[in-house]
Amino acid sequence: MGKIYVVSISSGNILDMSNRAVKAIRDSDVVVGYTGYVSLIEELLKDKEVYSNSMKGEIERCRYAIKRAREGKKVSIISSGDAGLYGMAGPIFEMAEDLEVEYIPGITAAFLAASQLGAPVMHDMCTISLSDLLTPFEVIERRIKSAAEADFVITLYNPKSLGRINHLQYAINIIRLYRRDDTPVGIVKNALRKNQKVIITTIKEIDYDLVDMSTVLIIGNSQTYIKDGYMITPRGYKY
Amino acid sequence: MGKIYVVSISSGNILDMSNRAVKAIRDSDVVVGYTGYVSLIEELLKDKEVYSNSMKGEIERCRYAIKRAREGKKVSIISSGDAGLYGMAGPIFEMAEDLEVEYIPGITAAFLAASQLGAPVMHDMCTISLSDLLTPFEVIERRIKSAAEADFVITLYNPKSLGRINHLQYAINIIRLYRRDDTPVGIVKNALRKNQKVIITTIKEIDYDLVDMSTVLIIGNSQTYIKDGYMITPRGYKY
Ligand SMILES: C[S@@+](CC[C@H](N)C(=O)[O-])C[C@H]1O[C@@H](n2cnc3c(N)ncnc32)[C@H](O)[C@@H]1O
Ligand SMILES: C[S@@+](CC[C@H](N)C(=O)[O-])C[C@H]1O[C@@H](n2cnc3c(N)ncnc32)[C@H](O)[C@@H]1O
Repeated sequence: MGKIYVVSISSGNILDMSNRAVKAIRDSDVVVGYTGYVSLIEELLKDKEVYSNSMKGEIERCRYAIKRAREGKKVSIISSGDAGLYGMAGPIFEMAEDLEVEYIPGITAAFLAASQLGAPVMHDMCTISLSDLLTPFEVIERRIKSAAEADFVITLYNPKSLGRINHLQYAINIIRLYRRDDTPVGIVKNALRKNQKVIITTIKEIDYDLVDMSTVLIIGNSQTYIKDGYMITPRGYKY
Repeated sequence: MGKIYVVSISSGNILDMSNRAVKAIRDSDVVVGYTGYVSLIEELLKDKEVYSNSMKGEIERCRYAIKRAREGKKVSIISSGDAGLYGMAGPIFEMAEDLEVEYIPGITAAFLAASQLGAPVMHDMCTISLSDLLTPFEVIERRIKSAAEADFVITLYNPKSLGRINHLQYAINIIRLYRRDDTPVGIVKNALRKNQKVIITTIKEIDYDLVDMSTVLIIGNSQTYIKDGYMITPRGYKY
């Protein structure tokens, strides 16, 4: 019988993948993913049949994975970070019906990035995607406002892509209504990949030109500070 | 020179740990952690010096790790899930000063649990800890209210421990002001550990007696539904 593994590849660096994720890919006949992610895990793909396509090809990828699994193949469909956050787990569970599906969790971008910044998260946090392809911008806006107001550490995903160049600046301006000008912000591009870039700055000094589609931003809460080049959110311990 | 690895052990099952986490522990002379977590990774601890203590011993553990690293040892201090969320990364970066620190990210409980439920997260989400040892309950309450109002998927950490038996019910009652009675809730105890327990229920039918300190609860958003025993939050794709 066929089977689908929904595999979280974390950064895409094999060092960050779980052993369960590596095993699932090794056990698969077919590996399906966005072209950019497939190329990250090339070393695992020898002797595999690979189906990849471009961004926005998500549903096509799911359909293909399900088709091959119904034909009796073991199929891994991969997502960056954790597949269950803005990833492929949702569409697969919605469409798979009678097929066996195993979703293998991974390290989401917020924590991949956090690990390169110090300890920026630590306390109650939320993730917000700025992509309005599937979500009305009013919903996103309301979430940004609520999260800022309630002092969550906020990680912004999908901060920029073609046709959404002003959303990030707009989002940051909402958050600034509730946070100090010197609130620390960590910007991490390609966390734990070859071309990683890490910047620690403040909310009023963000260089928007540095941000691209492979970037997350972690906005500190009211207690976050910068020390010796690290971004730290204290949890409240006394030393 | 000594060094501290802040190691995220994810579920504690070696299958879920990243290769980077396993390597760090293998490379260490000393491993420091809460007794319950140290016992999860016993197979990695042969020939290691181990220092463990009980819950609430966090700061003592950090002090010990730092002391040994200053003596020139390589020391791993371990946290469940990701060390940068309600874990040891914060205290270590706050206290370590001149020492070399490497924080190795992992899979936080929200996603360990999600992987056993279907695709319950998928969209904008937040984590809230119900422990008021270090955070005034008013702050927690405000965050619950904001997150519920803005339709985040909510993962509750530290839902119950001695002396905080009513917080969970109180938190759920706040969320219920903003969500349908049949909002799906996933309850996962010891996610991806030997004694895992998984329940999918609704917000009005939560069995509070099932919840303990090793449990997280994932509360769906307004779109979340249950299908074939899975909890699914759609992201909005059309099929
Ligand atoms: C469609 S979302 C997928 C998120 C993914 N499932 C996760 O859990 O991280 C794509 C966005 O995730 C973020 N992202 C994923 N991996 C990243 C990495 N290694 N470094 C920085 N950002 C990353 C970027 O914001 C990117 O625009
Ligand atoms: C002090 S917090 C540490 C959180 C951890 N650093 C993380 O990222 O998951 C402890 C709480 O995490 C949750 N937790 C951690 N690991 C878990 C697991 N495997 N299954 C269920 N809950 C877990 C429980 O709610 C527990 O009370």
